[in-house]
Amino acid sequence: MNLFRFLLLLLLNSTVAFAAKVDTLAIPSAAMQRTYKAAVAVPASYIKNKKARYPVLYLLHGAYGHFADWSRSTPDKTLIHRLADQYNLIIVMPEGETFSFYLDSPVNKASQFETYITKEVIEKIDQTYRTVARKEGRVISGLSMGGHGALYLSGRHPELFAAAGSMSGALDISVSNRRLNPEEDKNRRALFEPILGPEGPHPNLYDANSVVGMTDKLYTNGLPLIIDCGVDDFLIEINREVHRRLIYNHTPHDYTERPGAHTWEYWQNALPYHVQFFQQVLEKGGVAVK
Amino acid sequence: MNLFRFLLLLLLNSTVAFAAKVDTLAIPSAAMQRTYKAAVAVPASYIKNKKARYPVLYLLHGAYGHFADWSRSTPDKTLIHRLADQYNLIIVMPEGETFSFYLDSPVNKASQFETYITKEVIEKIDQTYRTVARKEGRVISGLSMGGHGALYLSGRHPELFAAAGSMSGALDISVSNRRLNPEEDKNRRALFEPILGPEGPHPNLYDANSVVGMTDKLYTNGLPLIIDCGVDDFLIEINREVHRRLIYNHTPHDYTERPGAHTWEYWQNALPYHVQFFQQVLEKGGVAVK
Amino acid sequence: MNLFRFLLLLLLNSTVAFAAKVDTLAIPSAAMQRTYKAAVAVPASYIKNKKARYPVLYLLHGAYGHFADWSRSTPDKTLIHRLADQYNLIIVMPEGETFSFYLDSPVNKASQFETYITKEVIEKIDQTYRTVARKEGRVISGLSMGGHGALYLSGRHPELFAAAGSMSGALDISVSNRRLNPEEDKNRRALFEPILGPEGPHPNLYDANSVVGMTDKLYTNGLPLIIDCGVDDFLIEINREVHRRLIYNHTPHDYTERPGAHTWEYWQNALPYHVQFFQQVLEKGGVAVK
Amino acid sequence: MNLFRFLLLLLLNSTVAFAAKVDTLAIPSAAMQRTYKAAVAVPASYIKNKKARYPVLYLLHGAYGHFADWSRSTPDKTLIHRLADQYNLIIVMPEGETFSFYLDSPVNKASQFETYITKEVIEKIDQTYRTVARKEGRVISGLSMGGHGALYLSGRHPELFAAAGSMSGALDISVSNRRLNPEEDKNRRALFEPILGPEGPHPNLYDANSVVGMTDKLYTNGLPLIIDCGVDDFLIEINREVHRRLIYNHTPHDYTERPGAHTWEYWQNALPYHVQFFQQVLEKGGVAVK
Repeated sequence: MNLFRFLLLLLLNSTVAFAAKVDTLAIPSAAMQRTYKAAVAVPASYIKNKKARYPVLYLLHGAYGHFADWSRSTPDKTLIHRLADQYNLIIVMPEGETFSFYLDSPVNKASQFETYITKEVIEKIDQTYRTVARKEGRVISGLSMGGHGALYLSGRHPELFAAAGSMSGALDISVSNRRLNPEEDKNRRALFEPILGPEGPHPNLYDANSVVGMTDKLYTNGLPLIIDCGVDDFLIEINREVHRRLIYNHTPHDYTERPGAHTWEYWQNALPYHVQFFQQVLEKGGVAVK
Repeated sequence: MNLFRFLLLLLLNSTVAFAAKVDTLAIPSAAMQRTYKAAVAVPASYIKNKKARYPVLYLLHGAYGHFADWSRSTPDKTLIHRLADQYNLIIVMPEGETFSFYLDSPVNKASQFETYITKEVIEKIDQTYRTVARKEGRVISGLSMGGHGALYLSGRHPELFAAAGSMSGALDISVSNRRLNPEEDKNRRALFEPILGPEGPHPNLYDANSVVGMTDKLYTNGLPLIIDCGVDDFLIEINREVHRRLIYNHTPHDYTERPGAHTWEYWQNALPYHVQFFQQVLEKGGVAVK
Repeated sequence: MNLFRFLLLLLLNSTVAFAAKVDTLAIPSAAMQRTYKAAVAVPASYIKNKKARYPVLYLLHGAYGHFADWSRSTPDKTLIHRLADQYNLIIVMPEGETFSFYLDSPVNKASQFETYITKEVIEKIDQTYRTVARKEGRVISGLSMGGHGALYLSGRHPELFAAAGSMSGALDISVSNRRLNPEEDKNRRALFEPILGPEGPHPNLYDANSVVGMTDKLYTNGLPLIIDCGVDDFLIEINREVHRRLIYNHTPHDYTERPGAHTWEYWQNALPYHVQFFQQVLEKGGVAVK
Repeated sequence: MNLFRFLLLLLLNSTVAFAAKVDTLAIPSAAMQRTYKAAVAVPASYIKNKKARYPVLYLLHGAYGHFADWSRSTPDKTLIHRLADQYNLIIVMPEGETFSFYLDSPVNKASQFETYITKEVIEKIDQTYRTVARKEGRVISGLSMGGHGALYLSGRHPELFAAAGSMSGALDISVSNRRLNPEEDKNRRALFEPILGPEGPHPNLYDANSVVGMTDKLYTNGLPLIIDCGVDDFLIEINREVHRRLIYNHTPHDYTERPGAHTWEYWQNALPYHVQFFQQVLEKGGVAVK
């Protein structure tokens, strides 16, 4: 290949370059005796940059959702691709089922998503891709139930992640902070009982698995945190409470309120701020791919 | 006795009447193998009203204080007497030592003030005076460490009290919410280690014994609560946090911020509002003496 | 009269004594060319205590209400009488019409209630009763629209009152802090336009007449203030905002949140705390009748 | 030039490309009869992209600072260059003197910085560069006194800017919200009296020129706003107050609290979030250069 062709190729490549691809990867769960799919956005540079190890953003979906949500439901369908390329990040969007809350259910063997994400998914990703396969190279975020998941899993496994974020997070699954009418209460029970059993008197499993009660753990862990919520979101007061408790116990964290509700427009707007936040952490950790 | 003398006596009595007396009562503790004194204000009506059973306000002192504080340290030395008379209340001011925090120390057999107040003091008072010797007839409040004591003891023993209050309460004894310089930190340790041992990593005994972490218990108990703090008090943010958590989990409570700091002027001003609050509870419970 | 009869009389008197009377007084308004009634509770001691001058509590009613509300609508119909007797206070309950907001309407000559209350009512009361006819002897409070009225009138006329209070106050009459649907917005306009004209762009008359915008004036005035609201009241966020602004600009004030909504049960509970607060101010001012 | 040389040049250009230049531009002020310098970062693409009109970010410095601060004081000296290139933004950093507060002083003809920035600087920039010379193409932000300046100037001239931001903004210049000791008070007066005269009783010029009192104007303007402050900043409570008032009156805005104090580390961290925020506004306005 002469120099001309080489330069031409380079130029073409740099045009083609802005096109991360999104794989669908099957990730089996021994714990649940079942295989779930995950979407994995791989930045365009990954193919050429054959020696580099890439940091990974684990990005969790919300209740009633599935692994493909983040790559399909944002109004701008190129968002995930662009962010993967712009920041040279592998973005893994695993399955969390419609209502697992990313915890290991004590009453349902088929819902063991804490184990799935923190052991099985991470191991499979680290085997399949050239990742920075350690704490410094992993960050985690999510929306709604996935915001809970990101803070909950990183809060309980601080040895696995360098930073964590939550958008519009369902950070309190206990009913104690809410006044529900009988209809709402019934619906709520129907959703949570399959994973946590009947709620019963406080303190209970619902309290123990709510992020709002884990703020002292978050303080001790010391992970960089980014948390935001729309002021018209039905979860805004829960997020304000978490912010106030983190202020109260002096846990460093970024907290943002902005216009918007529990919508994909909101999350499309919020995600780039999370990625920018994580990028700083990854750069400080020396694992960002330039 | 003729009618004239009877009427004269009545009149004199009504003059004499505005003079509750304050007894000093020795209350032994089997748990601590020691006897402590308590001040007991008995309303003037108690002597004449020989069949009536009287409700009791347990009123706890603060750190570095003793049982005689409430009856001696308010700028107006007649405050306790007047309130006892005005509301026909027995006001019991028991000993809590300079730094017991009204808990049963797991490391110090000589500091067992939860047992002392909830078992030994109450039993002795109910034996010594014509009290309404049940939950409906007892209310409890206190200042600073005693505000903690009132919420802590009633929170853990809701079967004993009809309502509880806290003025300028030291409602968080964990250090997790504070930034102390080494000098302050050393002082703090010196105070708490004799009753709770070294603080150690969270969650720990310090967290478990702080009212700020008991808000779900307060919700479940459902006792009427009155909490206040001066805006210039060094404990104001802790009291705001407790208020916000009680708002968050929908626990009914009266919460007041007013001018003032951690002073006897403040407590002299605050106590009559507590007694007025308790009086309503006692009236609803049918145990107030008219 | 012999001594026996004298003593008997005294005794009877002390029984009769607990019976303040509530007058209805016609108070003409030159400004509005109309006469309105006021209810005036006069303590039982007033008749015997013929040389004493009595302090006056002006107590304002809410929207859709009238002068007789405070003496007729509390669940306990003896409340006003008892408080007048207990604290030796004259309690004046003047007319504020269904929707005057206690201001001098710039568009309606027939609605001039700022002038009415601050000039005509006070003058008439001071002529009719043995009052402490100066600032030190007057306090003012009210509920809802009347809470606004009490803070608004004392805020603009600090030379007339020694202290002011608001229960469940409608402390913001501008629409700028609210999101109303068209129906609500229409209703709101129908109420306010007769006294303030069309709202128009901000800043406007609505803003200028809202207590929430007068907090710097309240700071400068330095009057003792007591403000409260029920946590289930639709006006709670407005009251929280006023409290925060008074905290922010360091205006001394008592602020309470307690269980309850926009109901007479709430106001019956709240009023005694206001009177207790005012009594301290009157005692410090040397004008309380013992 | 043959194709080979052309391609080579392109490649070299794309390397050179990541190097915005920062001009120093003299901008005379007729109002102040004096010429001040401004720093202007021009993105590398500007030279090649000869037909494009570029949006402009006006970026204001803080008290005790000067026009060169933003380009010289961030720990990473390439920050401004990189942001200009990454977002294809012209970044103008004008002079605001050590203590002008970006207002037209009513007592000092030599301090007329509202006129300077909003008329003279903007006009000069639009004459000198290929700008989008209208509202849609201008955004403004700043730090501390410059955060005040950005919200103050855009608040009073909403026809000039598409969006505004404030980092660690000095959003209240009235003393009414603070308790200063005599020394602090004296220092404060020495700073503000040259531009606003003696403070005098409220309401006054200090109140009228504080952003905290302009929240209804910000609501009416409807400009997108981004406001942040570090939790250890001495200005945090002022920023919280502005946020709460904007929440209260339903003004859409992004508000962030994050770790940090009044330092260049904080502002280096904060600025990229502002630029990302502005970029979305510019893209929606159709004026961003791709």
